[in-house]
Amino acid sequence: MDAVILASGLSKRMGTNIPKPLIRLLGLPIIEHTIRKLLAKNYRVIVVYHKKEIANYLRKRFSGIILIYNPEPERENGYSLYLVKDHVRGDFLLLMSDHYYGDKFFEDVKRHNRTTIYVSKFVHDAEEATKVKVRGEDVINIGKGLKDYDYYDTGFFYCKYDIFSYIDKLVKTRYKISISDIILELSKDKRVGYYVVEDFWFDIDTKDDLRVAEKFLERNLIKKEDGIVSRNLNRKISIPISKILVRYDVFTPNLITLLSFMIGIISGVFFLVKKYILAGILAQISSIIDGCDGEVARIKAMRSSFGAIFDAVLDRYADVFIMASIAISYGFSLLTSIILALAISGTIMISYTSHMTKLRPKFMSRDVRLFLIMIGSLLTILNKNLLLYMLFLIGIFSHIDVIFMIFRKKKAI
Amino acid sequence: MDAVILASGLSKRMGTNIPKPLIRLLGLPIIEHTIRKLLAKNYRVIVVYHKKEIANYLRKRFSGIILIYNPEPERENGYSLYLVKDHVRGDFLLLMSDHYYGDKFFEDVKRHNRTTIYVSKFVHDAEEATKVKVRGEDVINIGKGLKDYDYYDTGFFYCKYDIFSYIDKLVKTRYKISISDIILELSKDKRVGYYVVEDFWFDIDTKDDLRVAEKFLERNLIKKEDGIVSRNLNRKISIPISKILVRYDVFTPNLITLLSFMIGIISGVFFLVKKYILAGILAQISSIIDGCDGEVARIKAMRSSFGAIFDAVLDRYADVFIMASIAISYGFSLLTSIILALAISGTIMISYTSHMTKLRPKFMSRDVRLFLIMIGSLLTILNKNLLLYMLFLIGIFSHIDVIFMIFRKKKAI
Repeated sequence: MDAVILASGLSKRMGTNIPKPLIRLLGLPIIEHTIRKLLAKNYRVIVVYHKKEIANYLRKRFSGIILIYNPEPERENGYSLYLVKDHVRGDFLLLMSDHYYGDKFFEDVKRHNRTTIYVSKFVHDAEEATKVKVRGEDVINIGKGLKDYDYYDTGFFYCKYDIFSYIDKLVKTRYKISISDIILELSKDKRVGYYVVEDFWFDIDTKDDLRVAEKFLERNLIKKEDGIVSRNLNRKISIPISKILVRYDVFTPNLITLLSFMIGIISGVFFLVKKYILAGILAQISSIIDGCDGEVARIKAMRSSFGAIFDAVLDRYADVFIMASIAISYGFSLLTSIILALAISGTIMISYTSHMTKLRPKFMSRDVRLFLIMIGSLLTILNKNLLLYMLFLIGIFSHIDVIFMIFRKKKAI
Repeated sequence: MDAVILASGLSKRMGTNIPKPLIRLLGLPIIEHTIRKLLAKNYRVIVVYHKKEIANYLRKRFSGIILIYNPEPERENGYSLYLVKDHVRGDFLLLMSDHYYGDKFFEDVKRHNRTTIYVSKFVHDAEEATKVKVRGEDVINIGKGLKDYDYYDTGFFYCKYDIFSYIDKLVKTRYKISISDIILELSKDKRVGYYVVEDFWFDIDTKDDLRVAEKFLERNLIKKEDGIVSRNLNRKISIPISKILVRYDVFTPNLITLLSFMIGIISGVFFLVKKYILAGILAQISSIIDGCDGEVARIKAMRSSFGAIFDAVLDRYADVFIMASIAISYGFSLLTSIILALAISGTIMISYTSHMTKLRPKFMSRDVRLFLIMIGSLLTILNKNLLLYMLFLIGIFSHIDVIFMIFRKKKAI
């Protein structure tokens, strides 16, 4: 299906020289988020633009996007839509270039039998939002100034091709045409329905909107499975890094996974040669970078089941190498062998059991394990053996976590 | 919903004194398989019997089954059905006590709006089978002697309560009434539909039928994930053991999992004290018993997601303990530490990766690992170090398996 993004607005309220669709949110231009989500779902993307910076950026960044120049942006977004009439090939999605849409918008698209407005009960700035009044299954009124309304227009539309016959009529009589004007015409013939989307969205008009959206989206990158160290420390560092990495296509999520793994291996080598402090810091850096692959994948709509498995397996190998290196660095004895066996089996069993039970470990998630290894490494300044004891504790608590997960699973059934 | 099992047949063709429903298939009476599958799906089970052995057995084995005595079994199975009229509470399933039904029969039950015969294109003994002729969605004829037919009657029916008004009429005019007679009456009013089941079923009438079913069901217990040792050796021993264990309720699948685990731990203890041959044999016995928990769970319709997780976690712990014990028994050195780390991480990683990728390991499934450990243990007669080298090989090939699974997953996407 085709998807049309309107990017020829003239809004000046942001107070910068950068065209609004190119303003960065989580490191990517607002319009790029929408384009990536559409391309991930195999839409053919059409962008109507006025400022040449937008066309230049999109040409550089994507291939296969259809760019249509709007010489008269002052005629408003309904006129922009009019310009794509000869380019779309049937039903299509219509989206705004200054909106950020949550993932569910793109997952929820169904075939509708008439033009359909995706609406929401929620909005960040109710004053500025376009309101929608419905009756039964029909949209009966739309506009910014409505006093009596049911939903907010999210700026996401499923359009039937017949919308153009209505636009044709309007174009003949008016200079300025808004999307709302078109919807109103359609609604007179009961040709507009609505669909309530259960996800967040942002219309970015001001610097304040941008700040609110950025904060919200950053929080949204923190997974509910995150352990205490990840939530309070690692994410605070990994998210700013990811916001830079997303600008460069070379940093695919899988490459970042590999980088984090390699830092883990280097950390292990330093443990082997007993450079504990450096090794411990590298382990913690590896743990932080380990957050970036998932963040970049989510920001760039590149999540894949392979990526998740690749990450999980390499994480385990880095853990095993680091822990084996620590134990081996303390020489060979019954004690080090037992700690080695406990720590290695614990670190993999915790992930395996968590994967099977779909439960989270209470104590020894990976962020906590690697953080404790760093702490143990730093403590070698006081007493060389403290790192070995730390490894022992990590091993013991990992197995306690495994047993807890089994019991919680048993209780849940 | 209610489920009625007719168990008052008088068939003598088996040539034993045991009533046919009590003849054992995979260690359990034929009727018990059906009852367990029904109870697992929360049906209220009603059994119509004539021979007191049946009632005695079912009373001893199950509580909450409704037993209805049929004093006139010679009036055939339609009359047996007549006797449950005042006991069923609406629509019900009707099943035969001398049939073995595959699991899908019970999974596929839907609400039908008229009495429905579950039919199949396949049958073991076409001559003895009841045939069904259909037209459109209606059953138009049924009987053993039909020359022109479309399906075989599997002896599994979804009955609407109105079936009893047809039986009432027949009872007034005939002494003997078969299910087919009743279906024919219903079909005159277009009150019978059919549903094609995609699973196997057996009507056990002769010793030959029993042999065929037993062979088929035994093969069916072998999982497609089974490794080469399991398929060719372990299952040949575990299945006969399971057929005995199913007779005793104390041997729940989880208890058998625990027994197999404990034998593994005892094996590990013997490895620690360098009783390699005994330890190796115990490891292999543990591996064989490890097959029984799943077999018993399948035979007794007791499979559970907790049981699968419990088994998987305990298997990993037994593996880790056995492998750590072997490595430690060879003293403490860089070599034994590396082999320890390789083997422990390999054995858990293989299961973890297999679980995530949904792929099977090519070389080192658990049956193969434990079998090779036994071989290595026996080889200590020739050279004490051969077991350590075997452990090294198991570790290396486990990791090769992990890498292969990752690449196969990558290719599959």
